[in-house]
Amino acid sequence: MGTAIGVGLIGLGTVGSGVVRLLQEEPSSLQRRKHMELALRHIAVRDPSKHKGVAGVPLTGDAMAVIDDPQVQMVVEVSGADGAYEWIRTALEKGKDVVTANKAVLAAHGDELFNLALERDADLMFEASVAGGIPIIRSLRNGLVANRLESLYGILNGTTNYILTQMSRGAGDYAEILRIAQEKGYAEPDPTMDVSGQDAAHKLAILARIAFHSTATAEDIFCQGIENIGLYDIEQARELGYAIKLLAIAKHTQGGIEARVHPAMVPAASLLANIHDEFNAIEVDGSAVDTQVFYGKGAGQMPTASAVVADMVELAERKCSGAGSAIGDMIVGEEATSIVPIHGIELRYYLRLLVLDRPGVLEQVARILAVEGISISSMIQLERDFQGGSVPLVFVTHEAREAAMQKAVAAIDALDSVKDEARLIRMENL
Amino acid sequence: MGTAIGVGLIGLGTVGSGVVRLLQEEPSSLQRRKHMELALRHIAVRDPSKHKGVAGVPLTGDAMAVIDDPQVQMVVEVSGADGAYEWIRTALEKGKDVVTANKAVLAAHGDELFNLALERDADLMFEASVAGGIPIIRSLRNGLVANRLESLYGILNGTTNYILTQMSRGAGDYAEILRIAQEKGYAEPDPTMDVSGQDAAHKLAILARIAFHSTATAEDIFCQGIENIGLYDIEQARELGYAIKLLAIAKHTQGGIEARVHPAMVPAASLLANIHDEFNAIEVDGSAVDTQVFYGKGAGQMPTASAVVADMVELAERKCSGAGSAIGDMIVGEEATSIVPIHGIELRYYLRLLVLDRPGVLEQVARILAVEGISISSMIQLERDFQGGSVPLVFVTHEAREAAMQKAVAAIDALDSVKDEARLIRMENL
Repeated sequence: MGTAIGVGLIGLGTVGSGVVRLLQEEPSSLQRRKHMELALRHIAVRDPSKHKGVAGVPLTGDAMAVIDDPQVQMVVEVSGADGAYEWIRTALEKGKDVVTANKAVLAAHGDELFNLALERDADLMFEASVAGGIPIIRSLRNGLVANRLESLYGILNGTTNYILTQMSRGAGDYAEILRIAQEKGYAEPDPTMDVSGQDAAHKLAILARIAFHSTATAEDIFCQGIENIGLYDIEQARELGYAIKLLAIAKHTQGGIEARVHPAMVPAASLLANIHDEFNAIEVDGSAVDTQVFYGKGAGQMPTASAVVADMVELAERKCSGAGSAIGDMIVGEEATSIVPIHGIELRYYLRLLVLDRPGVLEQVARILAVEGISISSMIQLERDFQGGSVPLVFVTHEAREAAMQKAVAAIDALDSVKDEARLIRMENL
Repeated sequence: MGTAIGVGLIGLGTVGSGVVRLLQEEPSSLQRRKHMELALRHIAVRDPSKHKGVAGVPLTGDAMAVIDDPQVQMVVEVSGADGAYEWIRTALEKGKDVVTANKAVLAAHGDELFNLALERDADLMFEASVAGGIPIIRSLRNGLVANRLESLYGILNGTTNYILTQMSRGAGDYAEILRIAQEKGYAEPDPTMDVSGQDAAHKLAILARIAFHSTATAEDIFCQGIENIGLYDIEQARELGYAIKLLAIAKHTQGGIEARVHPAMVPAASLLANIHDEFNAIEVDGSAVDTQVFYGKGAGQMPTASAVVADMVELAERKCSGAGSAIGDMIVGEEATSIVPIHGIELRYYLRLLVLDRPGVLEQVARILAVEGISISSMIQLERDFQGGSVPLVFVTHEAREAAMQKAVAAIDALDSVKDEARLIRMENL
């Protein structure tokens, strides 16, 4: 065995206990890392009386005591607690290396924390913050380092992908599936972060920093959830040869980068359309490698713990061999790219209306679209009674500007003959 | 800029010139690696008179001169030449770090070379040797380090996947597609290495070392090519809900590991069934992460160069920060796993015969299968004239031992009423 690196663990919940389990089980791949050893030295939990802890390792209710412990060189923050930002910052200030799974902290404070790490020659690793066990962070940072990345499309939230998959299988509508998912523990009692797309936006902010040198936080990212996706739209999408997925998209364009999270129609034959249930996938286009896809479980105890331990091992190996911080590539300086506002993007759109079945309605809608310069690629009107005498009307547009689409939708929604709000789903060519 | 690492390049063909191009273009992700610099110091090519070389860098016809150059700390071997093994060995003996794309050398001499690297505190990196631009090597070595790997299924050869994809699209039979692929440059003038499965077996030997601590060389791996796959089998597979892919499989079992390359029927809905044309994909099952899939281009100038440069950057960063060799995990000692002989595996099988359309044939075949204890799951006999009065007879078995299947096939092939050789395709549940 080589030098031992002292580890302090903040959080012994689902992920934390998964990390302890992996360290104790030691698969042979870990045992072969003979030039490093991870020694768990101190653990902090919210309420020590409620945990049996780990044999031989002091358990405290004070995270700062772990950070201050001179025997701790590496702080592993997997608490999910409100104090996480402060603990990570304090550890880095003390020049200690940090491994975290906390996407919210990195999405909001990444710029400050990575710069702080560089300044103190410490490291901040975060593979578990995005897409759980999928090694997407190290693949982008190291594996694809020789590429200029063109675009990144991610299914980064398992809960929403599960809901959309079940809806597309006819298992129920949004509200029904959400309730089942909550009963099974696939969705949180308060599912807002997931279904609103916020969780995916946090992860996208982290990926966009690596891929596009963006300093955008989750709040800078346009974000729309899946709450309004209807079974009818999923059915229509299928008829048109598409599936509906909640995508997190970052893309290099002339005017800056696009960064947005919203439901999108993707071609049924594309790999992303075939990512089912709670699985995650990230499709990346690089200048040298062309298209790559990374697929796996984006959440859950052991996938997340796997990513945390991978970071711990890599960090320990580097430190044991005397290497300094490797955070340099996470620093975004003056070359930071700006985000194109959502109204400036250009895409094809799926537009679904619920209209009264009477003469002249189609003409009214068509006129509004024409006024906004939106060209129609195809139109479907079926003889189907949807709700109380109204019929669905579906348009697929040629490429149009988001600003024009939004103006058109507002005008259409104001028509007397249009019931319910128009549903707009962006279409992506993968 | 930090310290510069002197690079010697052996080979300036397709991959070598791609590497030079990436270093010269320097995407911003490379520029941000401020704590290292790669300085190209010496290039060797077979015939210097046929290359214009790189401005300011000496060009030689003698690879050993590059290896001996005291200004060269890192040797990048991308020659594809017969001397590769000796050059890599010599460079490591001198304590120089090596990056190579040469799968054949690693598959045959991995054990010696990795041990040599460890002994001389040098590094040997080889991301480009398997699956081109896909960062599968570092994902297995680092990203999934906390996992005990259960199985690995790879589509590792682009040429054969292109041929099988085109056949399944009805573009022609094996011979026709191969000819078209050769015309388009997708297949070599002598395609043996690819179509026989040998190329995939080399790559599997490398992956099996990482994933399962195997010291098996390509020769230890059972290998069957796609030369005998008929359009009829692809059609029947589709009817049964499967696609036929050339798979490289390594799998942990009670008695050792399975390591084999052969055409396999995989469920049509599985991700691997939907990997088309020249793309590669690797599906890995890990104890903590569950199923992961890595997808991308497995060959070609820039994807391969991307992987080579990623290795160069990682190596340079480690060396610049004073770190030693990180080859420890590639060393397989006494815990080396042994390979289960092919006759010991148990699978379901697709068995296709061409029989004379006369009474008693089915009974004869059924008796042979019964004698070998092979249980039939389904049987298809269509009223279809295949070739000169014979009809195809397709069996799908329940799980059976390979040894029993081979005995049965030999007995069946000996029947007068059976024309042509029986076709056996192994079925994998993905």
